Amino acid sequence: MHFNRLIKKYDLDAIFISGPGHGAPAILSQGYLEGTYSEVYPEKSEDPEGMHKFFKYFSFPGGTGSHATPEVPGSIHEGGELGYSISHAFGTVFDNPNLITVTMVGDGEAETGPLATAWHSTKFLNPICDGAVLPVLHLNGYKINNPTVLARITHKELEQLMLGYGWQPYFVEGDEVESMHQAMAATLEHCVQEIRKYQQQARDSGKPFRPRWPMVVLRTPKGWTGPRKLNDHYLSGFWRAHQVPITDVRTNPDDLKKLEDWMRSYEPDRLFGEKGRISPDLRDASCPKGDRRMSANPVANGGLLTKPLQMPNFRDYTIKVDKAGAVSAGSMANFAAFLRDIIKLNPTNFRLWGPDETGSNKLSLVYEAGKKVWMGEYFEEDSDGGNLSPFGRVMEMLSEHTCEGWMEGYVLSGRHGLFNSYEPFIHIIDSMVNQHCKWIEKCLEVEWRVKISSLNILLTSVVWRQDHNGFTHQDPGFLDVVANKSPEVVRIYLPPDGNCLLSTMDHCLRSSNYVNVVVADKQDHLQYLTMDEAETVAAIDLLLQHLPDLKIRCVNVVDMFKLIHHSDHPHGLEDDDWVSLFTADKPIIFNFHSYPWLVHRLTYKRPGSHNIHVRGYREKGNIDTPLELAIRNQTDRFSLAMDAIDRIPHLRDRGASVREKLKNQQQEAANEAYENGSDPEYLSEWKWPDKGT
Amino acid sequence: MHFNRLIKKYDLDAIFISGPGHGAPAILSQGYLEGTYSEVYPEKSEDPEGMHKFFKYFSFPGGTGSHATPEVPGSIHEGGELGYSISHAFGTVFDNPNLITVTMVGDGEAETGPLATAWHSTKFLNPICDGAVLPVLHLNGYKINNPTVLARITHKELEQLMLGYGWQPYFVEGDEVESMHQAMAATLEHCVQEIRKYQQQARDSGKPFRPRWPMVVLRTPKGWTGPRKLNDHYLSGFWRAHQVPITDVRTNPDDLKKLEDWMRSYEPDRLFGEKGRISPDLRDASCPKGDRRMSANPVANGGLLTKPLQMPNFRDYTIKVDKAGAVSAGSMANFAAFLRDIIKLNPTNFRLWGPDETGSNKLSLVYEAGKKVWMGEYFEEDSDGGNLSPFGRVMEMLSEHTCEGWMEGYVLSGRHGLFNSYEPFIHIIDSMVNQHCKWIEKCLEVEWRVKISSLNILLTSVVWRQDHNGFTHQDPGFLDVVANKSPEVVRIYLPPDGNCLLSTMDHCLRSSNYVNVVVADKQDHLQYLTMDEAETVAAIDLLLQHLPDLKIRCVNVVDMFKLIHHSDHPHGLEDDDWVSLFTADKPIIFNFHSYPWLVHRLTYKRPGSHNIHVRGYREKGNIDTPLELAIRNQTDRFSLAMDAIDRIPHLRDRGASVREKLKNQQQEAANEAYENGSDPEYLSEWKWPDKGT
Repeated sequence: MHFNRLIKKYDLDAIFISGPGHGAPAILSQGYLEGTYSEVYPEKSEDPEGMHKFFKYFSFPGGTGSHATPEVPGSIHEGGELGYSISHAFGTVFDNPNLITVTMVGDGEAETGPLATAWHSTKFLNPICDGAVLPVLHLNGYKINNPTVLARITHKELEQLMLGYGWQPYFVEGDEVESMHQAMAATLEHCVQEIRKYQQQARDSGKPFRPRWPMVVLRTPKGWTGPRKLNDHYLSGFWRAHQVPITDVRTNPDDLKKLEDWMRSYEPDRLFGEKGRISPDLRDASCPKGDRRMSANPVANGGLLTKPLQMPNFRDYTIKVDKAGAVSAGSMANFAAFLRDIIKLNPTNFRLWGPDETGSNKLSLVYEAGKKVWMGEYFEEDSDGGNLSPFGRVMEMLSEHTCEGWMEGYVLSGRHGLFNSYEPFIHIIDSMVNQHCKWIEKCLEVEWRVKISSLNILLTSVVWRQDHNGFTHQDPGFLDVVANKSPEVVRIYLPPDGNCLLSTMDHCLRSSNYVNVVVADKQDHLQYLTMDEAETVAAIDLLLQHLPDLKIRCVNVVDMFKLIHHSDHPHGLEDDDWVSLFTADKPIIFNFHSYPWLVHRLTYKRPGSHNIHVRGYREKGNIDTPLELAIRNQTDRFSLAMDAIDRIPHLRDRGASVREKLKNQQQEAANEAYENGSDPEYLSEWKWPDKGT
Repeated sequence: MHFNRLIKKYDLDAIFISGPGHGAPAILSQGYLEGTYSEVYPEKSEDPEGMHKFFKYFSFPGGTGSHATPEVPGSIHEGGELGYSISHAFGTVFDNPNLITVTMVGDGEAETGPLATAWHSTKFLNPICDGAVLPVLHLNGYKINNPTVLARITHKELEQLMLGYGWQPYFVEGDEVESMHQAMAATLEHCVQEIRKYQQQARDSGKPFRPRWPMVVLRTPKGWTGPRKLNDHYLSGFWRAHQVPITDVRTNPDDLKKLEDWMRSYEPDRLFGEKGRISPDLRDASCPKGDRRMSANPVANGGLLTKPLQMPNFRDYTIKVDKAGAVSAGSMANFAAFLRDIIKLNPTNFRLWGPDETGSNKLSLVYEAGKKVWMGEYFEEDSDGGNLSPFGRVMEMLSEHTCEGWMEGYVLSGRHGLFNSYEPFIHIIDSMVNQHCKWIEKCLEVEWRVKISSLNILLTSVVWRQDHNGFTHQDPGFLDVVANKSPEVVRIYLPPDGNCLLSTMDHCLRSSNYVNVVVADKQDHLQYLTMDEAETVAAIDLLLQHLPDLKIRCVNVVDMFKLIHHSDHPHGLEDDDWVSLFTADKPIIFNFHSYPWLVHRLTYKRPGSHNIHVRGYREKGNIDTPLELAIRNQTDRFSLAMDAIDRIPHLRDRGASVREKLKNQQQEAANEAYENGSDPEYLSEWKWPDKGT
């Protein structure tokens, strides 16, 4: 309500993010007062009946949540899982120069790691082309059963902390309602003036700088305006005021009276009158109109603003392959050219995000179109390949949480993005991706929500090529987490070569309302063969050398959800198509680059599923040569060929001698690789056989 | 080396934690100089041959990692995944009053969320009963390809930030080697004196307080002492010095010469002499002896110090159940008494950890033995059920990362712990648990590492009882992440009732070297029947009412890994035993409280696996009544009974009419629950049938 006054006074473009747990009541009631709620849910009308429904269905089964769920107009941030309000808020204001995102941060939420580092987002915000975030750190002092850390350190320490994070804190503290309103009004206005001053200074001069952005520390009692004590226990100003402060009103008339008195202290009779409707005069005086209402701002229903990306033709970036398997090239480096041109064509609509790995992931070509955003200090060496700029298009901070939160906010407010990360460390944001999946799934059930662009995650530096990083860098399990989400919102792609990667990314960047996960190796390799495909085809070659009468079919799976039955995922094959590819009665050896059990879980219903034998990463690793790592997990060409022999009963006699030979060849290859300390040539050595296998 | 001087001078008990990525070289070389490395790896002897092996196998396939892996003596913290050095360090010093854990924090690592909030750990450290952490924030200025945030803010801001976090920063900055050594020596000595002063003050007075603990900000160039430029590119003091600063020495003799000159600037000839061994005099002057060496301190091989917990007899806490299904009680509240007495019996050896949920998880009884540790300010209302104390045994901060890091450090240094958390939000630390699994698995291969106590994780507030929290609080997928880890280190238990929970926890707390995950509902329920068991038995009851000639077997699975074949997990059943329980040819309906696919993944090899039909959470949720949520996911008694009918072909005709009746009953029950707004009585209404089913 305080900010509404300023929206009206200065015609501000603003949205509100509610960070604290169970933070929906303020945003819900404001939406109702502003009229938005009744507009989108006509049965919650502006009269006693509608109000009754509005109240009754709050936190009621099948009703409205106490977190700011997708059903809540004006929300882009549910707040069910704590920690992401600030990073989401910054995501909304990048490339939105007029937007101010007012963000309430709970002091419980402020203890989380993701929130604690997100304060540093100011080092990536350009006052010329970006808007501003105005955080209100709300110290109500308590979590569920505990005091909060930031409410129990000295005023001086808290001030230093926020100054150290680069913000200018303004304190609004107390419990006397009238004076607190005066203080809040004056403080917020001062903050808005400071924001506008810094923006104007940068925009007038054309010189971006990092000001000490204003923020508010609001200290009020938890359960403010409620009784300080209830039945000899502290209530207001203590954790007992959490969620449902007075719990026995159904059975205790005294406590019911206290609750009623408390509620009546807000003077509903005066405010809503006999018709149970806020008077038009009061609304005019206190609420903005139309899209200026924070509950109706299209930024918070980002699909309304989403424009498709301008896309070059991905076929123009094709890697020329005269003969399959004869060209060694980097899929990722090639894709970088496509990505660079997407950045060029969409200068205010698309950003690339990642935790300090864009270069390492071989995407450096993108810097030709957009450097890395940097609003910290610049040193002389930066001109030597630093690729930093206040006007960059690539966002890199060594916090997967912050990068993901920024991108989610950016996409939720109607733009596009791509996150690139190392495969093992994407687990750091398992939970954030989970929550985003749940958000977009629930949005499908909310009529007035317009679809937003997909969240695109590109995973590289896969488990098999962690020669020098070792066991900690070997974890392909993110796919298992993603595969648990609703089939309506998740997609997994495993493009085998550079050209398929182009086509896959083209598809993903044009799609909406999905979480697309693309796994692709960053290393140079044979086109078209990734390591696992190379091993598979090489295994077939080995088998045919020794057993030329075998019949072998090689199937490459790009779209992971083709494996699942059509009734369980829209991409799934029908059983007929499955059988035509895999048969119902022949042994199938599946060479997979992640944990093998995922394949079983996706195929357990298939005809002949008991014939499927999956090789993959079985948590056996170290700093190994790629060959040694493959052998440890039995995904190398020799193990695969031996697997095949073991699974074809009529081969037994002939097979035994071939098996022996393969075992020896495997040992020789392993020794050689070990002697060399690595085996970079191991893969490119092998050539696609002349005969058509 | 600087701290070695102080260890010798003051006879300090200290270990070193290396936080930065690829942070092993310092800790490895120090271990070699101190003699420890050759003691545990005799082939890396103290002579030119041994030194050659020591160098050659660094970051070499099959050799020693560049992160501080379990193979590194003196390490409890690998540092492969960044962000946990400070929380690990605090874990080691809780209840270790004499220990100082010197902790190097990388400025890349410092950008992560987990690290950013871990600085607040001082609010939970008691100078009387705990030791101290001495952080050295190392600003070398660069990550892989980027500057770091903390190295590019002003000196003043950085100072304010650390002051705000509650630390007293001392700055050691420069690139002139001699003066930097003098500054570092003086600063570290000052820090140690301050630490000892605060500890003595608190211990002499018996009054714990939170001092402004000292820490060091060390600013040196990345690649310090290396060439500033190489071939017209900046090297030292820039990101090009990352990992392998000079890469072309095999082919470029000029660069090889530069590398040699750089290495020779350390004067190896003088230090190691003709015998290739550090002179005894120099070692005596610079290194502590025996266990005082940080590389040999038993704290960093915590199994050496681990003592079994003193355990009361869990049978003394048995819930009396005269008749199965006739008593409604809280498993968790009952377990709390057992846990309370464990805390009593192990006052310096065991802690309970969790993010503000111990009370909400119905474990409050533990506060009788140990309150919540709190070193922040105290207010008057705290005496009214605040349960805070500087000498508490329960650690609560709203950061799963910090709690988990503390517990890992505590367990790794030879003590015991139990983490309790909400099921959905344990995903926040997927990645940390992954990394701990990898650590303990790798330790099994390191001869001199002694087993440590297990990491015990108790998950409550399961998906099925999130009536008012809704969709964001519904995610049982942590089990899928855990199930990907090596069978040698992970265990999953699903105790169905209070007595089984006691027995399970007794078992887990006595075990070593595992990650034990226990899932148990915190709500009161029928003993012995959790919600899914109740639904299952009720479904059987419904079926027998309508179809009394059916034969149904009910099997309860407590140990999840019994499902997998014995060859794949030590707990796995042999196929014979499997068949004797489940048969090879009868339909099996599995009612599971997590994502159903996990069961398929574990059972795909079993005889009759195609007969297994799993119901579980299928990502269908909202703020629902428990019954409505069960119906949405088809895990309610009615759906299960209908499932059974659908799967028994000879029932078809009779079955159809029963199915119809069940469908109607389901609708009636759902309507009733919805009208009431909840269905707390829904489960307890149903009574164990008199006939023996």
